[in-house]
Amino acid sequence: MKLVRYGERGKERPGLIDAEGTLRDLSGQLGDITGAILAPESLARIAALSPTDLPPVEGTPRLGPPVGQVGKFMCIGLNYADHAAETGSDLPEHPILFMKATSAINGPHDDVVLPRGSKRSDWEVELGVVIGKAAKYVSEADALSHIAGYCTINDVSERRFQGRLSGQWTKGKSCDTFGPIGPWLVTPDEVPDPQNLSLRCTVNGETMQNGSTRTMVFTVAQIIAHLSELFTLHPGDVIATGTPPGVGMGRKPEPVYLKPGDVMELEVEGLGIQRQTVRMDEAPR
Amino acid sequence: MKLVRYGERGKERPGLIDAEGTLRDLSGQLGDITGAILAPESLARIAALSPTDLPPVEGTPRLGPPVGQVGKFMCIGLNYADHAAETGSDLPEHPILFMKATSAINGPHDDVVLPRGSKRSDWEVELGVVIGKAAKYVSEADALSHIAGYCTINDVSERRFQGRLSGQWTKGKSCDTFGPIGPWLVTPDEVPDPQNLSLRCTVNGETMQNGSTRTMVFTVAQIIAHLSELFTLHPGDVIATGTPPGVGMGRKPEPVYLKPGDVMELEVEGLGIQRQTVRMDEAPR
Repeated sequence: MKLVRYGERGKERPGLIDAEGTLRDLSGQLGDITGAILAPESLARIAALSPTDLPPVEGTPRLGPPVGQVGKFMCIGLNYADHAAETGSDLPEHPILFMKATSAINGPHDDVVLPRGSKRSDWEVELGVVIGKAAKYVSEADALSHIAGYCTINDVSERRFQGRLSGQWTKGKSCDTFGPIGPWLVTPDEVPDPQNLSLRCTVNGETMQNGSTRTMVFTVAQIIAHLSELFTLHPGDVIATGTPPGVGMGRKPEPVYLKPGDVMELEVEGLGIQRQTVRMDEAPR
Repeated sequence: MKLVRYGERGKERPGLIDAEGTLRDLSGQLGDITGAILAPESLARIAALSPTDLPPVEGTPRLGPPVGQVGKFMCIGLNYADHAAETGSDLPEHPILFMKATSAINGPHDDVVLPRGSKRSDWEVELGVVIGKAAKYVSEADALSHIAGYCTINDVSERRFQGRLSGQWTKGKSCDTFGPIGPWLVTPDEVPDPQNLSLRCTVNGETMQNGSTRTMVFTVAQIIAHLSELFTLHPGDVIATGTPPGVGMGRKPEPVYLKPGDVMELEVEGLGIQRQTVRMDEAPR
């Protein structure tokens, strides 16, 4: 099942994409797609609906992030061995965790807006995981059963804010619009092996990232088990599980950063394509 | 005005503390105390009510955090010169930002529960700031006008999780129950100078921290102006502005950490006292 949220920002309605690729409205069935409806039994209830009974949505409305009211937006750093190498970092002993502000969450095709003063903004295609069932002290073996679905995420990152403003990466990760999620929240029955998905990111048509979740340092199950030792993962929480090599800061001979007019296209296999145009925040000084 | 939220966890009702110290119910006036009611004009509407017209609340109900639906729970690190010294750190050039998971937020007198495996949990009394009006690219001169109120915060910190689990402090800051906020959200008219407030923390009656916001490295106004260059601060967002010296990890000759049965008492001048009993999470392995 491919769940979506569509419509104006902040007023998104729930929907699903049927087998023919048609967007159908779910608002007769539920209020919104949030943690409250992501438990296995409530997803099963939606899956039992006959899509042809749901009204098709006319036109091509904006898509929002496929989950609303996200509590925690967690990211795992340096989780691909070859990406760690390109940034000159050692492999971490445990999953590196940082938080992205939930206020950075954006629709999959919304513009990415560079904040005033940004000169080093960068792309990061990532496999996103959305929690469906609260997880505390879960084992690696049990971890995947806590997942409601998977999605494509762009962990947009301002490298100067991230590294040169006295520490803690969250500064460069939390800018408004720096968290495109979607287009779809794809339920686990359609993702037989989260450790065997290709990921790619192009900028202006040029392939920048082209990897596979096979090369993750810590698997999705290991990440969930580890985090659940620290705190409770709640339904609707989102984890971006790290990026493969090919980010702009690692380009040779010179780093390449985003500039107004650039178009990013990102895809995780089976989870849909997102596409963003970059622009500069024109707020006057 | 001293706003509170009282009642069972997750079902808190809004209230205020009147001049005589009586808790009065506000649920006839508003649904909950969240970012949606923290704009200056809506706080003015509540301030215009006559407290004696509001029903007093019987008994001594539990107090919750005085603001609900917090979007971002931001913390400033090493923001007191003498605390930076006790941790062996240099003074930061810019405010250090890390995020505390909003799922860590707790009532001011709720138990603090040490997660499984925690041996180095520590206290940090802090001046908390709650945003009332969205702030993006605000000047230092204008920053304080975006504040809905102030509160006492305990930025409870597991030092091993914070420093020894492959980086980024958020791991040790985000454990469930590690974010007591309150008891009160005190509006700015009752806090004439946020840079001249004493802060103290005792553990089992022994004074551990005893400082003043006068010795902050970055003022509240500077913090808000800086963060607002990075992203939007939204109504209901909370900033914990750093801790004065006296944390357990800095004690001589040996660090001192929290153990089950310890009682912490924390106060920021004029913002009320919070008191927590420490216990161990007894979840079986």
